[in-house]
Amino acid sequence: MTEKTKVAMVGFGTIGTGVARLLLDRGDRSSRHAKGTLHLQAIVDPDTKRSRGIDLPAGLLTDDLTRVTGDPEITVVAQLIGGLEPARTIMLQLLESGKDVVTANKALLAEHGPELFRRARQLGRSIAFEAAVAGGVPIITGIGQCLAANQVESLHAILNGTSNFILTRMEERGQDYAAAVSEAQSRGYAEADPTMDVDGSDAAQKLAIMAQLAFGAQVDWKNIPRAGIDNVELADLRWACELGYRLKLLAVAQLVPEGLELHVSPTLVRHGTPLAEVRGAYNAISVVGDAVGRVFFEGLGAGQMPTASAVVGDLIDMALGHTEITFGALQLWPDGEGRVAVREPGDVSSRFYLRLNVEDRPGVLAEIAGVLGWHEISIASVIQHEADEEAPQKSIVPLIIMTHTATEGAAATAMETIDGMPFVRPGSVRMRVYDS
Amino acid sequence: MTEKTKVAMVGFGTIGTGVARLLLDRGDRSSRHAKGTLHLQAIVDPDTKRSRGIDLPAGLLTDDLTRVTGDPEITVVAQLIGGLEPARTIMLQLLESGKDVVTANKALLAEHGPELFRRARQLGRSIAFEAAVAGGVPIITGIGQCLAANQVESLHAILNGTSNFILTRMEERGQDYAAAVSEAQSRGYAEADPTMDVDGSDAAQKLAIMAQLAFGAQVDWKNIPRAGIDNVELADLRWACELGYRLKLLAVAQLVPEGLELHVSPTLVRHGTPLAEVRGAYNAISVVGDAVGRVFFEGLGAGQMPTASAVVGDLIDMALGHTEITFGALQLWPDGEGRVAVREPGDVSSRFYLRLNVEDRPGVLAEIAGVLGWHEISIASVIQHEADEEAPQKSIVPLIIMTHTATEGAAATAMETIDGMPFVRPGSVRMRVYDS
Repeated sequence: MTEKTKVAMVGFGTIGTGVARLLLDRGDRSSRHAKGTLHLQAIVDPDTKRSRGIDLPAGLLTDDLTRVTGDPEITVVAQLIGGLEPARTIMLQLLESGKDVVTANKALLAEHGPELFRRARQLGRSIAFEAAVAGGVPIITGIGQCLAANQVESLHAILNGTSNFILTRMEERGQDYAAAVSEAQSRGYAEADPTMDVDGSDAAQKLAIMAQLAFGAQVDWKNIPRAGIDNVELADLRWACELGYRLKLLAVAQLVPEGLELHVSPTLVRHGTPLAEVRGAYNAISVVGDAVGRVFFEGLGAGQMPTASAVVGDLIDMALGHTEITFGALQLWPDGEGRVAVREPGDVSSRFYLRLNVEDRPGVLAEIAGVLGWHEISIASVIQHEADEEAPQKSIVPLIIMTHTATEGAAATAMETIDGMPFVRPGSVRMRVYDS
Repeated sequence: MTEKTKVAMVGFGTIGTGVARLLLDRGDRSSRHAKGTLHLQAIVDPDTKRSRGIDLPAGLLTDDLTRVTGDPEITVVAQLIGGLEPARTIMLQLLESGKDVVTANKALLAEHGPELFRRARQLGRSIAFEAAVAGGVPIITGIGQCLAANQVESLHAILNGTSNFILTRMEERGQDYAAAVSEAQSRGYAEADPTMDVDGSDAAQKLAIMAQLAFGAQVDWKNIPRAGIDNVELADLRWACELGYRLKLLAVAQLVPEGLELHVSPTLVRHGTPLAEVRGAYNAISVVGDAVGRVFFEGLGAGQMPTASAVVGDLIDMALGHTEITFGALQLWPDGEGRVAVREPGDVSSRFYLRLNVEDRPGVLAEIAGVLGWHEISIASVIQHEADEEAPQKSIVPLIIMTHTATEGAAATAMETIDGMPFVRPGSVRMRVYDS
């Protein structure tokens, strides 16, 4: 590895521009750990006209993919096209033309990972994807290589920076959801259509990739139970605070004797724990390994340069030979049987936060407690303030209940019953609680 | 790498027992990422009689080092002897007999790293040392491999779990220093003689290793300016809290245009930042890279199983071939010139916290402010409460000053002048402030 490794890039958008900047402006810098310098040989993008604010050597940018697939000297390619197609087809073409491929596309891996990993393995090629989960945070190498002596027991993670930014704004500034979304958009933290970010889909895709890596779980991300922050109300952030918690969109993979629990949902995270303190657009992952205990990683999960940092890190790993070893050692293809069964969502246990809008009259709490008790859900604490004399519906008050551990199934059934009671008004909220 | 890699261990103390437990009890588990299982072939220790609470296969434990050095089938050895000798000599013997060596001994690396790394390189061998810094936290791989696309700009780290445990107890329970040390000892977090932990030496050794890795700085740890927590008083923890800070033993390496700044000292860390929230025996490192921004790592920095997790992770990396690549790519030997100059300690800038015991009379603050101004140190805030009427010396009050940025040299000279003023009593305290 004393010579330059010739690399190419397919896709020249925001991330691609960041990668080009690192490779062109700082070739000598990244060469320190890579010995030889990575040499950027070609950039392929259908749009060869638009200025990206970066000076490119003449002839580097092309709209012709065969400049890469047909050049045997190029051995390593960063595939930086978003979405599923043509990203999937181009990725297969790159693998078939003998390239090792780096990608930051988590949607592609969550959807077509098994196919792509299997094909790469058949062809003796490697795929690296540090940038696909948590941007600049080295969690893929962390789990896949550094913590290899451990059985991972659980992952609790904030994987969507947009959601975390919105929740932080709501909490710290008292902005409502719509205002916080607008601000995230104006700052470039949220897309014009932020649906995938705020509805939990993006986090579920990343969780599926991590669950494959850490537990060998082969799971379709669409089957991961998920709720987003799009229904979170300021009231719940305030109640959470009063109870000593912060509200976070938490992605969880937890190994229990009965199998692997997977879910994404707004969760009350106890104040003072590392995950509760993650602010703004940051991502974080709390990993528990059976030997190492808890290891916590935090950093920027998106953005041009943090993502480019991970992509170029992967390119260096490929040039040096790390990726071939890691990809060979990890069993990231579905030839073998899944090593762990995913648990039925209804069987997953948690503590719960309940917020009910109830009529302010005697006996209400007793009847609700009775329903919870019937479903073997015991109450840890209750908050019921007096009705606000100024409120338009004077007789309706919020009732906040924190439960002890109960199954998702029992909690859902109990809530259905409670919501049907005559003194309970629409708008009940139920969220998980995470204490450690 | 489909066959078992035969490994040996030299040194069978607490960490060694943890490593043996992972290799013997969980061979299949660690084999998942290592493909073949690591096979523990021999354990060498002068004491072959003492029970370590683990069942060993017959004949595994020996007091004869040639069982390892003379066995060409053993290619990878974990060297788990503490202290400098015979650790250094045995490490050299292992390298010379053709073994790649994993070590957790930061004192050995801080003292003899250049010699050991150079010898390994001459012999075509590798050394891995993830466990030597921050125990189970994968910071060595993080900096040396994952963030390779970045120029690291700064490291701010809590590297001594004993000190952090003591400071946490003092802060949370109001215990004084001596009581907190006793508790750390009774819980096994502090040695009978905790000097190296609490005086900043242990953190300085780890900082020297990290500075070599991140900046190519060749620095003798004994030349790193360091202060420990052994003089920290409860009063300063309380003032820090009132000002919105927590007190942490911070190890800092920061690249500025003039060179690399290195120091270890008790520092006021702003509440709400990740480092301020690190409690108990945990370690943490906040790395800033020019592309990735801030990445934060936290985990247990010591203890049997966290350290064993890092050692076995290194053994797996060696068996798979990662270490040879990383060790080859990193320039961890002093053949080349040092890539960065270490800055004169007096030139290093910081904000400062000052606590002075002064006579409670008019004009005192003005005179002290005058001295600071003379040294071009401007005052950011002052706290001076009224004298405690119950205190034995009614006329002495604490004066707390937070400065804006000033050099260490100017601050030290100003403090010398201030301490010589007739209305200033002994016991002045000066500590750095870290805001981000």
